[in-house]
Amino acid sequence: MTAEGDELVDVIVVGFGIAGACAAISAAEAGASVLVIERAGAPGGSSALSGGEVYLGGGTSVQKACGFDDTPADMFAFLTAALGPHADAEKLRFYCDDSLDHFDWLLEHGVEFTPSLYDAPTWMPSTTDGLMWLGENSYPFDTLATPAPRGHRPPMPYFAGAPLMAALVAAAASAGVRTVVDTRVTSLVVEEGRVVGVRAKTYGAEREFAARRGVVLTTGGFVDNEDMLEAHVPALLGQAKVSDGLDDGSGITMAQAVGAATRRMHAHEVALTVLPALAARGILVNARGQRFVNEDTYPGTVSHAAVNHQPAPFWVIADEAAFDDIPPDDLWGVRPHHAAETLGELEQDLGMPAGSLEATVSAYNAHAALGKDPWFHKASKWLRPLQAPYAAVDVAAGFHPGDRESSTNGTGVAGFTLGGLHTTVDGEVLSLTGDPIAGLFAAGRATAGMHGEGYISGTSLGDGSYFGRRAGRSVAAQ
Amino acid sequence: MTAEGDELVDVIVVGFGIAGACAAISAAEAGASVLVIERAGAPGGSSALSGGEVYLGGGTSVQKACGFDDTPADMFAFLTAALGPHADAEKLRFYCDDSLDHFDWLLEHGVEFTPSLYDAPTWMPSTTDGLMWLGENSYPFDTLATPAPRGHRPPMPYFAGAPLMAALVAAAASAGVRTVVDTRVTSLVVEEGRVVGVRAKTYGAEREFAARRGVVLTTGGFVDNEDMLEAHVPALLGQAKVSDGLDDGSGITMAQAVGAATRRMHAHEVALTVLPALAARGILVNARGQRFVNEDTYPGTVSHAAVNHQPAPFWVIADEAAFDDIPPDDLWGVRPHHAAETLGELEQDLGMPAGSLEATVSAYNAHAALGKDPWFHKASKWLRPLQAPYAAVDVAAGFHPGDRESSTNGTGVAGFTLGGLHTTVDGEVLSLTGDPIAGLFAAGRATAGMHGEGYISGTSLGDGSYFGRRAGRSVAAQ
Repeated sequence: MTAEGDELVDVIVVGFGIAGACAAISAAEAGASVLVIERAGAPGGSSALSGGEVYLGGGTSVQKACGFDDTPADMFAFLTAALGPHADAEKLRFYCDDSLDHFDWLLEHGVEFTPSLYDAPTWMPSTTDGLMWLGENSYPFDTLATPAPRGHRPPMPYFAGAPLMAALVAAAASAGVRTVVDTRVTSLVVEEGRVVGVRAKTYGAEREFAARRGVVLTTGGFVDNEDMLEAHVPALLGQAKVSDGLDDGSGITMAQAVGAATRRMHAHEVALTVLPALAARGILVNARGQRFVNEDTYPGTVSHAAVNHQPAPFWVIADEAAFDDIPPDDLWGVRPHHAAETLGELEQDLGMPAGSLEATVSAYNAHAALGKDPWFHKASKWLRPLQAPYAAVDVAAGFHPGDRESSTNGTGVAGFTLGGLHTTVDGEVLSLTGDPIAGLFAAGRATAGMHGEGYISGTSLGDGSYFGRRAGRSVAAQ
Repeated sequence: MTAEGDELVDVIVVGFGIAGACAAISAAEAGASVLVIERAGAPGGSSALSGGEVYLGGGTSVQKACGFDDTPADMFAFLTAALGPHADAEKLRFYCDDSLDHFDWLLEHGVEFTPSLYDAPTWMPSTTDGLMWLGENSYPFDTLATPAPRGHRPPMPYFAGAPLMAALVAAAASAGVRTVVDTRVTSLVVEEGRVVGVRAKTYGAEREFAARRGVVLTTGGFVDNEDMLEAHVPALLGQAKVSDGLDDGSGITMAQAVGAATRRMHAHEVALTVLPALAARGILVNARGQRFVNEDTYPGTVSHAAVNHQPAPFWVIADEAAFDDIPPDDLWGVRPHHAAETLGELEQDLGMPAGSLEATVSAYNAHAALGKDPWFHKASKWLRPLQAPYAAVDVAAGFHPGDRESSTNGTGVAGFTLGGLHTTVDGEVLSLTGDPIAGLFAAGRATAGMHGEGYISGTSLGDGSYFGRRAGRSVAAQ
């Protein structure tokens, strides 16, 4: 199928986020000639815009330096709960058993993690600490597995996806991976039932690229495709998007066009601003003034509990002592939206049923005075009776992972998709009848990964990088 | 493609539930020769095992006889909320605007509705009343549209799907529709890009059936297919199934094999026993002893609020007066699982946090004494302070729509799927690229119907029958 000017390589990788980078490196290191085709003007994708957390454990050197033992079994138990119910047990088992090896591989390929712990609930540390909690030390997870922090992140305050991807892009180049940018793959080329290349456009010009061994789709999710959201994830319609603006599901649809099956297309992440530092020191309530979750767990878990399951709007209720206790870098410039001398006034200001917030705070304070939170199990270090005057903060304020500026579209919610192509643990794309499609592989958010109904940060960069590597090895072995 | 012994007709309908019946009747009345192929030994499908409610409004003669005015606009406003968020506005618009016509059509085809109202919350009336509430008169729906009951059902206590289907099966025969039973359609026959027939098996023998004008898939949902649940609706794994045992998604997969797109495959109904008569007279609480919904709304809506969004287990808390107030036919033999003189004891028996249930009942009683429920808006007719001794009833007890016997598999939850083939309002099945697949039509639970995240009874028999008719007209016009 090659014509003059077309390319012929062993392996084509479509999309240069973290899954594409790791697939390309692994295939190249296995001896394949590899070309990554990226639609944007430079590598990085949504991964480079992310918080940069990679979920790793089992006793990494960073964990050990911070004083934590860890085991694959504890990691598996935690992720089964945090990504569930209905997380993918087979993918999780591989991911956890191989996590130490994956950590070493990332280090060997230039990724750095400072061996120090950020020890408070946050979306993204304001520091360069290389380790953070993702809820492992909070209820109910602390009852299911020995807590160990597993969020590993490059040394960069807040968004650390850029240095993560910079390292992997450099490693890909060192491994001999070639890249073309500004080139949009439009469809797969199939000959005699086998994927043998791709069709693409560069500034309107059509090109074909042939791949002797196969194609790996690492094109990301579909949060930027309104039609696909309408069809599969209506919950994300109208919400802000955690993406680089190019997550339009193109890899999913081009694979479906050659018979690929999809899986869990409804699964999605939602991130509510939450203001974790303030929420941990106060309480988070729904539109009825009810608490519903321990506010000290990972804010992603809090967000799911709120957005997917409780009536909006959501408010953090706090007092002056709570504000005063927050390190300035973690306050994100947030100020109270409402303040009142009594909870009755505050209820009225917030449009809550009379007596509802008062009942909630009364119970919370009575328990907090005893250092206990028997209804929701927030850790005792965050418990303190709230005192007048009271403040209410709209959780749509402040920044969060989906939003580098100061606001989303009013809901405070941003999200991305977790469903996609049905793949084996080796990255083979399965057909509608459950058989691998010859020559076709995929990883990252173009696929359904390890996730069930839950999500925590680090597991998308995590499964993208780990199963990207496996897909790269698989395609190179063709 | 016909061979000796094969069949040739204008229209083949696959599956003889309500969507198949209505498609077949409409196609036949439009002049087509119609063959319905049913896998079971007799027509009826899951529809015949259902409660038999059809959601109809806009001012039917039954509504008028019971003293209710109604409009398509109120019906649309209610269904947009009750089936939402993200109900299908286009399908809902057609459904509501044509509802009076659809009511008349059902009457013309032998379906009967007694003009009397069952006026209390229930899954299925214990009477022959032809009209029931499906939450229209409860919060928040009563604030969104003028309440009118729209659950129309044949004169049969409890499960009224059998007489509904008996009437439509007879109407199909009268219209000249032919039927073969014990015959499982295995795939679609495509010639030159057009669906022209089906392959099938009868007791192991393979047969082909040709259709001059097209094929209508009305094969039902996929709650009986564990692989499809695992891939698309993990929430229903391990739950009891509302089906005839043959809802294995075969129509969806055979259409996908010829390029059909699916939509909202995650959408599903969950029915929790709930014990509506008792819940309305008491309170429903989650595992933390919290109320979360007005207990007098339709039990399907209560079930979604509980199962999809709250921590299990769920308990109805009631007192002796509540039990005494229930008509014997609506008690379903339910007796308290726990009883205690104080709420503190009851909390302990139920494993709830100390003080949680006490706080809930205390607030409920204080408001109920004033005839108000400002936190959840249960109607005043159901409000009365609960008095010691208190009873707790496990909502997994008693019967409900998914369960003709006395128990489910321990959760008290049963469900079925709402996602499926992507169709137009005329029943055309759309391809992955959004174009109609020539000769292929579908309706009922093999398709994604009107539903968003919500569900109420009557809307599945409702959209199956209405869009079944439209599909029948479409295929006959080919």
